[in-house]
Amino acid sequence: MTIRVGVNGFGTIGKRVADAVSRQPDLQLIGVAKTRPSFEARRAMDRGFPIFIAGEGSAEKFASAGVPVAGRLADLLTQIDVVVDATPEDIGRENRKIYESAGVRSVFQGGEEADVAEASFNALGNYEACRGKRSLRVVSCNTTGIARAVAVVAPRWGVAHWHVTLVRRATDPGESKKGPVDGIVPALEVPSHHGPDARTIFPGLPIATTAVVVPTTLMHVHVNHVRLERPASSGEMIEAFRTTPRFHLFAPWERVEGTPQVMEFARDRAGRDGRRTPDMMENVLWERGISVEGRDAYFFQAIHQESVVVPENIDAIRAMFNVADGPTSIAMTDRALGLGRSPASAPPRP
Amino acid sequence: MTIRVGVNGFGTIGKRVADAVSRQPDLQLIGVAKTRPSFEARRAMDRGFPIFIAGEGSAEKFASAGVPVAGRLADLLTQIDVVVDATPEDIGRENRKIYESAGVRSVFQGGEEADVAEASFNALGNYEACRGKRSLRVVSCNTTGIARAVAVVAPRWGVAHWHVTLVRRATDPGESKKGPVDGIVPALEVPSHHGPDARTIFPGLPIATTAVVVPTTLMHVHVNHVRLERPASSGEMIEAFRTTPRFHLFAPWERVEGTPQVMEFARDRAGRDGRRTPDMMENVLWERGISVEGRDAYFFQAIHQESVVVPENIDAIRAMFNVADGPTSIAMTDRALGLGRSPASAPPRP
Amino acid sequence: MTIRVGVNGFGTIGKRVADAVSRQPDLQLIGVAKTRPSFEARRAMDRGFPIFIAGEGSAEKFASAGVPVAGRLADLLTQIDVVVDATPEDIGRENRKIYESAGVRSVFQGGEEADVAEASFNALGNYEACRGKRSLRVVSCNTTGIARAVAVVAPRWGVAHWHVTLVRRATDPGESKKGPVDGIVPALEVPSHHGPDARTIFPGLPIATTAVVVPTTLMHVHVNHVRLERPASSGEMIEAFRTTPRFHLFAPWERVEGTPQVMEFARDRAGRDGRRTPDMMENVLWERGISVEGRDAYFFQAIHQESVVVPENIDAIRAMFNVADGPTSIAMTDRALGLGRSPASAPPRP
Amino acid sequence: MTIRVGVNGFGTIGKRVADAVSRQPDLQLIGVAKTRPSFEARRAMDRGFPIFIAGEGSAEKFASAGVPVAGRLADLLTQIDVVVDATPEDIGRENRKIYESAGVRSVFQGGEEADVAEASFNALGNYEACRGKRSLRVVSCNTTGIARAVAVVAPRWGVAHWHVTLVRRATDPGESKKGPVDGIVPALEVPSHHGPDARTIFPGLPIATTAVVVPTTLMHVHVNHVRLERPASSGEMIEAFRTTPRFHLFAPWERVEGTPQVMEFARDRAGRDGRRTPDMMENVLWERGISVEGRDAYFFQAIHQESVVVPENIDAIRAMFNVADGPTSIAMTDRALGLGRSPASAPPRP
Repeated sequence: MTIRVGVNGFGTIGKRVADAVSRQPDLQLIGVAKTRPSFEARRAMDRGFPIFIAGEGSAEKFASAGVPVAGRLADLLTQIDVVVDATPEDIGRENRKIYESAGVRSVFQGGEEADVAEASFNALGNYEACRGKRSLRVVSCNTTGIARAVAVVAPRWGVAHWHVTLVRRATDPGESKKGPVDGIVPALEVPSHHGPDARTIFPGLPIATTAVVVPTTLMHVHVNHVRLERPASSGEMIEAFRTTPRFHLFAPWERVEGTPQVMEFARDRAGRDGRRTPDMMENVLWERGISVEGRDAYFFQAIHQESVVVPENIDAIRAMFNVADGPTSIAMTDRALGLGRSPASAPPRP
Repeated sequence: MTIRVGVNGFGTIGKRVADAVSRQPDLQLIGVAKTRPSFEARRAMDRGFPIFIAGEGSAEKFASAGVPVAGRLADLLTQIDVVVDATPEDIGRENRKIYESAGVRSVFQGGEEADVAEASFNALGNYEACRGKRSLRVVSCNTTGIARAVAVVAPRWGVAHWHVTLVRRATDPGESKKGPVDGIVPALEVPSHHGPDARTIFPGLPIATTAVVVPTTLMHVHVNHVRLERPASSGEMIEAFRTTPRFHLFAPWERVEGTPQVMEFARDRAGRDGRRTPDMMENVLWERGISVEGRDAYFFQAIHQESVVVPENIDAIRAMFNVADGPTSIAMTDRALGLGRSPASAPPRP
Repeated sequence: MTIRVGVNGFGTIGKRVADAVSRQPDLQLIGVAKTRPSFEARRAMDRGFPIFIAGEGSAEKFASAGVPVAGRLADLLTQIDVVVDATPEDIGRENRKIYESAGVRSVFQGGEEADVAEASFNALGNYEACRGKRSLRVVSCNTTGIARAVAVVAPRWGVAHWHVTLVRRATDPGESKKGPVDGIVPALEVPSHHGPDARTIFPGLPIATTAVVVPTTLMHVHVNHVRLERPASSGEMIEAFRTTPRFHLFAPWERVEGTPQVMEFARDRAGRDGRRTPDMMENVLWERGISVEGRDAYFFQAIHQESVVVPENIDAIRAMFNVADGPTSIAMTDRALGLGRSPASAPPRP
Repeated sequence: MTIRVGVNGFGTIGKRVADAVSRQPDLQLIGVAKTRPSFEARRAMDRGFPIFIAGEGSAEKFASAGVPVAGRLADLLTQIDVVVDATPEDIGRENRKIYESAGVRSVFQGGEEADVAEASFNALGNYEACRGKRSLRVVSCNTTGIARAVAVVAPRWGVAHWHVTLVRRATDPGESKKGPVDGIVPALEVPSHHGPDARTIFPGLPIATTAVVVPTTLMHVHVNHVRLERPASSGEMIEAFRTTPRFHLFAPWERVEGTPQVMEFARDRAGRDGRRTPDMMENVLWERGISVEGRDAYFFQAIHQESVVVPENIDAIRAMFNVADGPTSIAMTDRALGLGRSPASAPPRP
């Protein structure tokens, strides 16, 4: 069985999900929907992705830009089994009824409220609980990063209390209007919304989150303090992260000081080793940045806001159609995207 | 009695301390020492501060720049009771023996190791323990910010565990060579050096610190989670900070979103209300950014790295010469610098 | 005669103009108008400036913030001779009829179209042509910077062709929403609007301007190439700028590398030498950055976008009421604001 | 004949040149030399590039990092016909005699002085003059960008005077120590060194350059004013750029506002369409940003500092060994790197 997929929205997330869908053996990308032409529409065309006009988009504008279209969103919906909604925040909610009327399943993004879908989803976190649902919401990039880390730590050592400070990037690297240019802006609501959001994946998790926005475009960085229920060691925790899919650890000798070098590493891999993009879909940790003493664990992780949710969207589709269990889907997705293949993800220990 | 003061180093900290000394009724600024002419040397001249040549500085360079000098550092040392060393990191240690030979007392900055002086100092934290010492080290801007907050929280509610994530500014606004330009750089040593440094003021304090550097110049922001020994409420904690000197709280109606507005506020005050500089010598908190539930307290504070240690340097001098107790010195310093006078520091509550 | 002045708008420009008005011997600040309370309204209150509610502003909000008001804008207009409109772009045009109905003269800012007022104004550029007008528009910060430079160069050597590339700051330092965070955004309209705007001051000037926006908050930098009609030398041009009011030149020995040090210099002056703010109201040039060979002149100038128009607003008022000629008004304004007093503005030449 | 190539230095430029060499049908990458292990050394290993230890590099460090080496630089030099020196500034000059002793030809980068090699090189600019040389210097990224543009404009319309303002990126995106973070730093030497450097390619060219550094990592932007010898039109100039290799023009409908979108476009292409990297090796122009009136032409171009010199290094090798003429080499290089293949580089005109 091949699942026919459409992607509504072709921005930061949509274009990456469309690409990822097109690489899966069991999924077929039928088309993408976009409201107006741009260099990104052109890329869709160059890739051979059929383009459908979304919303109030003008066919004339596409024509004058030389971008042929295959119809409108309504046409796309008749040809697919599931739509991935990657439209801007709060638009997904409006689209929900359109999808329901068309009788297609739907995957929403974390910018929507949790009740947009039957359940919230994270592959390592709650795949099983999401099997067979008609609609799912992939939690946001930050919550995805948190959920993956919880999925490693909680079953092994228990969580008495988890506090994350999210040092958030201001905007994406391809955007030029948002700031701040110089300054730090705290999210004054304490705790921030990320804690409750994590509990859509792990009900009852004792987590509190605080957040600041800083003038960078590359990645978020999470600073974690976990009060464990059972003592651990730094070595054990490093090993746990290293052996879990969707984590990438840097060793000290690699001289990766911060997010500039992490994304440089990602750019260096692009186009090689399984046709990778210049993205970093894994949670990134530094071995030296993991410190556990007894029941107190501290660690940093960097989250590439543009791409960490991409493999999760793929797995969400398989969970909904119940065509694979979690570990199988994760392995399929990662193999198709080239994740986890690089020897660099398992450097030798002195 | 008037204490005769010299300041060695006229950069970010030195020029501010010299200005602050010159405003105190019981201190007399004898001169400042600088290695070479620059626009800042010119400012010293314009202010009427006698300039002495430090280190290997060249008299010819000062002469050709039209900046008259009053001698060399050795000459300055013969005319003063105490020197404030505001030279770059690790130079203070080398200077120590020069000061000792000259028989002057000395105040060092937090860039030096703790053992450079007889004790480390913070006015709210450990003034009494520092009275009569011959040398003191004012802890760094970040540790000063932490120590002030501990001085408010610890005596009232006890501290079972304190975790601060320091979101650090990359460099000062008047500097143009250091980065990062785009990116977040974690301090991979966990915990960072700030925790042990805080214990030079509060021995045995159960504090852990983690830090990241971000591309901003304005202020550091600290994200605090304190596990209290006794429960508190947000209102009680707001009140405790509000009624302590060297804290400035912003109310929600003031629409201060982050550090850009904090420093805008500081710039707006410059030259008025007691001749303030465009600095923010107080710890800055947001009422909305203080959240206490039972024994868990979360709060943000912003720290103006260029100026928070300035009043502390003044108080350190008085502690060394044992001419006032802590509250008296703090009140004298703050009155002279115009701190705490603005009605805005105590806005009405609805 | 004392001219009674009101300021409508109390943001970046309005608060500075109000302060500058309050320091002039022949002007009286009657009040300022603001739409809602904020820390800046509080500063107005602390300064003793009567506050009037502008536009649709809510009296309740001011009351609940503890900021007393003296009435609404309409009330202010009955008590003044002239209003300085410092409202956001395009609001000034809407306000014009209100001012006309109230029978007060008006000064608008450069964010408005040129036809908002009877003439556009720059003190060094066209003071005489503006005497006696009932409404004037002070050109924008960038055009003010250009006009001042043209006023120095054109009468001395003639202008065959002038090209400026404006390297523009992205947003002001007290703002936290606008970007870009990382990237350069060219103003693709070539030439940009600044050239035509300069011709509202110097009709027929052969000037072309190009502009890019960059991620900084401190100052704009103009890169000028002037094809002169008569040859000059670098020394002559340095001397011409040095001896003209509202220019500040830095000498090589001052080690001012770029805008970070320029604004550091301005901050260092705040609150001293004639009660200066931390602003830089002069065009800033570097001696080393002025290079003339025959008829080709190249020079950089930095423009502090928040404050260069402030003295121009004061002079515009005097021109309208015809109470002084240009040089007299400029001298009065500058003396009251402490401009040009610092010896640093005329450093010795080796 | 296959030319055997070694690359000394595996940083920003070296790693890209090594990759580009490995894709050419007539070149063979024998190995790369690096002083110490890092994530980039690991990438070389993952790519299958033999690694040689450069300079004083320690074999133990490579061994402990698990990065096998094939020898030292001296060993590499015995196996190759030509070395591309991509070491940090001024190291190339020291290496020159090593290369000469080893009897290999050499290509240096623009960070070296012009006399490091027999001639300076730009493929569009002076390929013919460089044929058969034993050493060449590929001019810097900025000079490469300028030279390409001159190669389009000069032969068609003549150049009476050319002025470029270079708005330079502060540092590369993978670097985290350099600034400025907030501020603009002019290169006070006027004209800057880029003008004389362009004359190493076009002797006698009447060009003057001025430069500022701004806080961005993505690309440089050049603002050009060319006084032509013969009049042109915007349309003619757009067409000239469009039909020249190594230029990429964006059409208005593509909504590319600035360098953030340019590099987003490059990232979107990575790994597709001929195995492109996320780089932008072409000069980037905006159709709307080209404005010609009579003999005055203005245009912006963006230069990706990390990659524009990469194809030039390849062509330099062919020129030295005299195995192809300029247009043939350019076409071979570009075909192998996937340049110029995207339909997006030739969008339809309405």
